[in-house]
Amino acid sequence: MENKKDKRHWKVKLHEIIYEADTPEGKWFDIILILAIIASIILVMLESIESFDTKYHDFLNISEWIITILFTIEYIARIISIKKPKNYIFSFYGIIDLLATIPKYLSLIFVGTHALIALRAIRLLRVFRILKLVRYSGASRILISALKSSRIKIIVFLFVVILLTIILGTIMYLIEGPKNGFTSIPQSMYWAIVTLTTVGYGDISPQTPFGQFIASIVMILGYGIIAVPTGIVTSELAKTDNFVPKNTQHCPSCNAEKHLDNSIFCHKCGEKLLND
Amino acid sequence: MENKKDKRHWKVKLHEIIYEADTPEGKWFDIILILAIIASIILVMLESIESFDTKYHDFLNISEWIITILFTIEYIARIISIKKPKNYIFSFYGIIDLLATIPKYLSLIFVGTHALIALRAIRLLRVFRILKLVRYSGASRILISALKSSRIKIIVFLFVVILLTIILGTIMYLIEGPKNGFTSIPQSMYWAIVTLTTVGYGDISPQTPFGQFIASIVMILGYGIIAVPTGIVTSELAKTDNFVPKNTQHCPSCNAEKHLDNSIFCHKCGEKLLND
Amino acid sequence: MENKKDKRHWKVKLHEIIYEADTPEGKWFDIILILAIIASIILVMLESIESFDTKYHDFLNISEWIITILFTIEYIARIISIKKPKNYIFSFYGIIDLLATIPKYLSLIFVGTHALIALRAIRLLRVFRILKLVRYSGASRILISALKSSRIKIIVFLFVVILLTIILGTIMYLIEGPKNGFTSIPQSMYWAIVTLTTVGYGDISPQTPFGQFIASIVMILGYGIIAVPTGIVTSELAKTDNFVPKNTQHCPSCNAEKHLDNSIFCHKCGEKLLND
Amino acid sequence: MENKKDKRHWKVKLHEIIYEADTPEGKWFDIILILAIIASIILVMLESIESFDTKYHDFLNISEWIITILFTIEYIARIISIKKPKNYIFSFYGIIDLLATIPKYLSLIFVGTHALIALRAIRLLRVFRILKLVRYSGASRILISALKSSRIKIIVFLFVVILLTIILGTIMYLIEGPKNGFTSIPQSMYWAIVTLTTVGYGDISPQTPFGQFIASIVMILGYGIIAVPTGIVTSELAKTDNFVPKNTQHCPSCNAEKHLDNSIFCHKCGEKLLND
Repeated sequence: MENKKDKRHWKVKLHEIIYEADTPEGKWFDIILILAIIASIILVMLESIESFDTKYHDFLNISEWIITILFTIEYIARIISIKKPKNYIFSFYGIIDLLATIPKYLSLIFVGTHALIALRAIRLLRVFRILKLVRYSGASRILISALKSSRIKIIVFLFVVILLTIILGTIMYLIEGPKNGFTSIPQSMYWAIVTLTTVGYGDISPQTPFGQFIASIVMILGYGIIAVPTGIVTSELAKTDNFVPKNTQHCPSCNAEKHLDNSIFCHKCGEKLLND
Repeated sequence: MENKKDKRHWKVKLHEIIYEADTPEGKWFDIILILAIIASIILVMLESIESFDTKYHDFLNISEWIITILFTIEYIARIISIKKPKNYIFSFYGIIDLLATIPKYLSLIFVGTHALIALRAIRLLRVFRILKLVRYSGASRILISALKSSRIKIIVFLFVVILLTIILGTIMYLIEGPKNGFTSIPQSMYWAIVTLTTVGYGDISPQTPFGQFIASIVMILGYGIIAVPTGIVTSELAKTDNFVPKNTQHCPSCNAEKHLDNSIFCHKCGEKLLND
Repeated sequence: MENKKDKRHWKVKLHEIIYEADTPEGKWFDIILILAIIASIILVMLESIESFDTKYHDFLNISEWIITILFTIEYIARIISIKKPKNYIFSFYGIIDLLATIPKYLSLIFVGTHALIALRAIRLLRVFRILKLVRYSGASRILISALKSSRIKIIVFLFVVILLTIILGTIMYLIEGPKNGFTSIPQSMYWAIVTLTTVGYGDISPQTPFGQFIASIVMILGYGIIAVPTGIVTSELAKTDNFVPKNTQHCPSCNAEKHLDNSIFCHKCGEKLLND
Repeated sequence: MENKKDKRHWKVKLHEIIYEADTPEGKWFDIILILAIIASIILVMLESIESFDTKYHDFLNISEWIITILFTIEYIARIISIKKPKNYIFSFYGIIDLLATIPKYLSLIFVGTHALIALRAIRLLRVFRILKLVRYSGASRILISALKSSRIKIIVFLFVVILLTIILGTIMYLIEGPKNGFTSIPQSMYWAIVTLTTVGYGDISPQTPFGQFIASIVMILGYGIIAVPTGIVTSELAKTDNFVPKNTQHCPSCNAEKHLDNSIFCHKCGEKLLND
């Protein structure tokens, strides 16, 4: 019985270290994990630079194995320390943690088959490890909630953009034609998006005077359209800001609201406020 | 008499299927129509890709005929099921529906004349079928009303932009001249719009130091100008948002919502509201 | 005496036609003037297109003379019909009207001297005729007042942008150097403005990895900076909107305006308001 | 003793001239300093233009020495006229003033060693002299406070941008590959930033249809993301505006400010406010 209690105690402690951050061990666990994630992302980047990869291939490979083993231990620890492992395994973070761990193991299997593209795709899958960091950025919730509440407006906006893109792309395909780089409607739509969003690579640009005239209208349209998402997000953020109750105090005498944070007396009736 | 009643009944039912969406048949009709529109747009796009068109020409042609016949049936059904067909035929949607149907028939006529450009224009007319989708996006009304109420400001803004474009285009034409790509005032105006809207293709760009200095001023101006439509739309959207009833009162009799803050009687049933 | 009265009457009538728009003749005068200005601007543009100019040189020349004579008559009429001609001559519109008239006369003088560049500059001076249209766009006052009241913020903003441009331009000049297109600090500053404003021509772009890293920071900075003028103008416009008296009630006693919608007594004199 | 008093008097006067601007001498000191800073910056720029430097090398060198000596005098004067020189020397302005003075002296040392790149870097260090101007732009405090209070949102926003950049950069590196200019993940990330910020140089642009499709999504994302900092800054600036006490009432008893417009009693001491 004591053994069982001990075991439970050990699991509870592990759970505390991994899932919470109020013990010193929990904090150290989080810091090491964050550093490992950042190191891992830098490794993926460095590996993609050919001149660096050929020079330090062994160093990159060994570092990658160390990080993979670290993530494997973390993944197993997370599963055994939680009461209902299924809840974790099939959660957003569970899937991200798995995707962060397996690529290196998979690369062992594919080495023989010489499936180079598949191998490259798998190696790059490791970049999604960065999503492990999302766990540590609670404040992103504000942005997500702002985006969520303006969901319908954004969909309508995207619908209008796609509609415009298709019509403008088709018109420019007709005016400029394949000889000026507008080889097909999808290609023209790509140009329309590049122009509407004011990115303007210049890889495709209108050559005929009439095409340039239409393009000018598209640009001014894009100018107006850029205002719409800004307006949506701004008014959403302004609302979120206002929604945060700045002072929730009510006057004990007349029930008036909107007291300043450092008010001592009610601004309506002069009654002393109850400050805790 | 029974026959007449039956016929009327049949027309009413057709009207219900086509114009409303609360019966299962009405819903199915809408879904099929939306899918047909999207399929049709994809066909137009694929047809414009030369390599695809030469390979699957017959498939594209047959698919196009199927969709054209489907739209023809829809068009006729809409006319016969409505009481006053003229109201539909000359409405925005009626014209769009007609434009969505005729291009394929017209292409039969023009085949003999070898009027290639006309044929291409007609074929591309089909892209406006996408406007048939507007019927299904009721929420676009918010954006349109926001644009409408800031109509005057937008016209003033466009007037200022055109005025700036003409003056800046002329100045740059004088400074840079034809040898640096600014071949004429309209061409320079095209450059001015490309720059003011921050698109910046780079197909025409100032080469002389003085031209680059003026261009820098134009860019910072553009930076400031981009703020104006955003400001207009944001303050309009903020106003629209305020219109959404903050007043959460429900009528005690009919449960209606959206009362003004100082309403005393329900705007639906006239019952006195319970104001605290 | 009657002659004098007649003459005065004639001057008053001319003044009414030119300076006001409530008589039919005044309206016609305005419409003809606006059309003449637009026609004149189109002529300047067409003249700058070489192929068009060589083909229709005589037509352009004659049209230009007709418009010049028209503007001359307008200028003289404005002077003789006003009581204090100096007030008009040295006003903004007076100077613009003069600049709109003289270029063609000046071109007669310069024809002999073959001072081609001076001639070209004079010819292009005519483009400022478009400023004559400003007279007819009263609503631009809203934008101007919004810009005026955010004057200080805009100056601070411009100071920050210039400061950033100088520092970033110097850093990039040091990193990339003349061999990558950053030939001097002013040239690098031009690049910094092109990048900060998100125009991005691509005529000069960083080639070294470190330069690209700094450029990335510049772009994200530009992203943040673009927000500042938008924020300034938006909050100004929002304020201007609130200032427009929605409530058109006038106090029956003191004629005060800007009452709240639910005001019962005048906020100036305490008189009871007449609510219908 | 009188000598000591005199000396103190002299120091006090110097302090007044240098650190304050309410005496005529203090104003002149400021104006001369601002002009010297601007002249110095222009010298640095002109020196970087090779053709100008070879032609006017002596003029630039002498002017630079004059400005350096002027700044040296200012630096020494600032140190001796202040009570606690350490407070000044290690302050932001103290460091800037030092950096503005030493480059020319350092260039004397490095002349022998032919360390050209170091010499160039030192020469360009002089550009930071422009930060001396910050002393004179008190209004920048508004912008800085707006940025400070939206600190957390900006960090979250930057985190999201970096996260997106890494993921999008990796995906595009996989799709387009080194043959289309996406030579490594850092290079692809550079492209992602160029695109997300709507700069769009066009030095690297997607060539494959699938790459162009992903790029289109990136651009529309960037379009949406551009709205976020604008929204943040706008709502911050709007708040700052509101914070400016519109109500100028002071409590007659405790002199507290920031009363609400309809307050009857002081929120600090409960005293009745004097409403007119």
